[in-house]
Amino acid sequence: MQDASLGRLQQRLAEFAAARDWQPFHVPKNLAAALSVEAAELLEIFQWLTPEQAAAVMDDPGSAHRVRDEVADVLAYLLQFCAAVGVDPLAALAAKIERNELRFPVPGGDTGPGHRTEH
Amino acid sequence: MQDASLGRLQQRLAEFAAARDWQPFHVPKNLAAALSVEAAELLEIFQWLTPEQAAAVMDDPGSAHRVRDEVADVLAYLLQFCAAVGVDPLAALAAKIERNELRFPVPGGDTGPGHRTEH
Amino acid sequence: MQDASLGRLQQRLAEFAAARDWQPFHVPKNLAAALSVEAAELLEIFQWLTPEQAAAVMDDPGSAHRVRDEVADVLAYLLQFCAAVGVDPLAALAAKIERNELRFPVPGGDTGPGHRTEH
Amino acid sequence: MQDASLGRLQQRLAEFAAARDWQPFHVPKNLAAALSVEAAELLEIFQWLTPEQAAAVMDDPGSAHRVRDEVADVLAYLLQFCAAVGVDPLAALAAKIERNELRFPVPGGDTGPGHRTEH
Repeated sequence: MQDASLGRLQQRLAEFAAARDWQPFHVPKNLAAALSVEAAELLEIFQWLTPEQAAAVMDDPGSAHRVRDEVADVLAYLLQFCAAVGVDPLAALAAKIERNELRFPVPGGDTGPGHRTEH
Repeated sequence: MQDASLGRLQQRLAEFAAARDWQPFHVPKNLAAALSVEAAELLEIFQWLTPEQAAAVMDDPGSAHRVRDEVADVLAYLLQFCAAVGVDPLAALAAKIERNELRFPVPGGDTGPGHRTEH
Repeated sequence: MQDASLGRLQQRLAEFAAARDWQPFHVPKNLAAALSVEAAELLEIFQWLTPEQAAAVMDDPGSAHRVRDEVADVLAYLLQFCAAVGVDPLAALAAKIERNELRFPVPGGDTGPGHRTEH
Repeated sequence: MQDASLGRLQQRLAEFAAARDWQPFHVPKNLAAALSVEAAELLEIFQWLTPEQAAAVMDDPGSAHRVRDEVADVLAYLLQFCAAVGVDPLAALAAKIERNELRFPVPGGDTGPGHRTEH
């Protein structure tokens, strides 16, 4: 069975690019552009759909495959971008969530024990 | 210490949105739009840079912070999008890498043992 | 009164960039990236809105100003991109409309001469 | 000969959409998404090119056609978006250029009246 952890996938993407001599193209600016293009391709699936149709997009096998394919492309370029600039995406997101918890306090969040203990 | 695995971050994002009653906004079409917008904000950092300047973007603390911040936003919306449509991003990427290995064969890849055994 | 024809605006943008020594940055790849970033900023205004809220976006003076501002940025980079690559945007669109009329025939369009003369 | 002024093209796009019953899809949020997607498709042409290759993109007939085609799509959705929200894109850009002339004064621009009369 393939190990599909984020780090392992990042390594496989690096090997994939190296085997095809694609590293010269995989500079930060190009990878940021490619990430943006792939995110737009994911959005393209939804652009003419009503919110209701969009919510049912995975019911159609063709659309579902296209969604998974574009998600993979976005994640692939995000991981390759992160490798190129030396950013740990998980640490970046964890830090951002902590900043956002200060920036967007929970309305009435002090009144109950609920979620506050988890964050 | 915070657990910063992808699954744990996805759970924290869900709790964060739920605590602020943001779930009604977090439908697939909106999340795909937001993902695309954040990817463009990452690209914006690089748009006027030469390839050389872009390669040195992490040398400046301000730019480095901005890059990490936008990487976090892209990953946050990607994970929330995946949760909304029920896609496992790691499985999607693993499957895509396997398809790409068939689609883009390594030039001269049969002649040596090198990387072929790794993929 | 300012002449605000497309050609005159394109000329003013060129003068504006030249007066600030921005031409070295205004190469096709950078301008295409900037155009994409500005289009995403326009989309950002709408990303969390319902279709109904989005349709009323011009009722709020602040949102209306932001929409006009982003429209201006998109058009500015489109015109500067076109100048950089030597494309006439009006001719390109006229040609595309003609191709699309062949590609997407009007349903029931054969039954009468009606719309054919209009396009 | 076709009249290819901006206003006439906007009218032809409206007739084109009306003849195909596409108006229900052409709401501001969808058009902003489509504009963003088309701008990304234009960027896609350049994403792996060096600045030098990008500057020569129109030398290849296939690439040149693709560039003109994506420029047309961007302009088409920009015009349709503007029609949907009631924004005059030329007036919006003229106003923005005037704001930018105040925001980004010409370096050394105080020493003579020169360029101020031109803008």
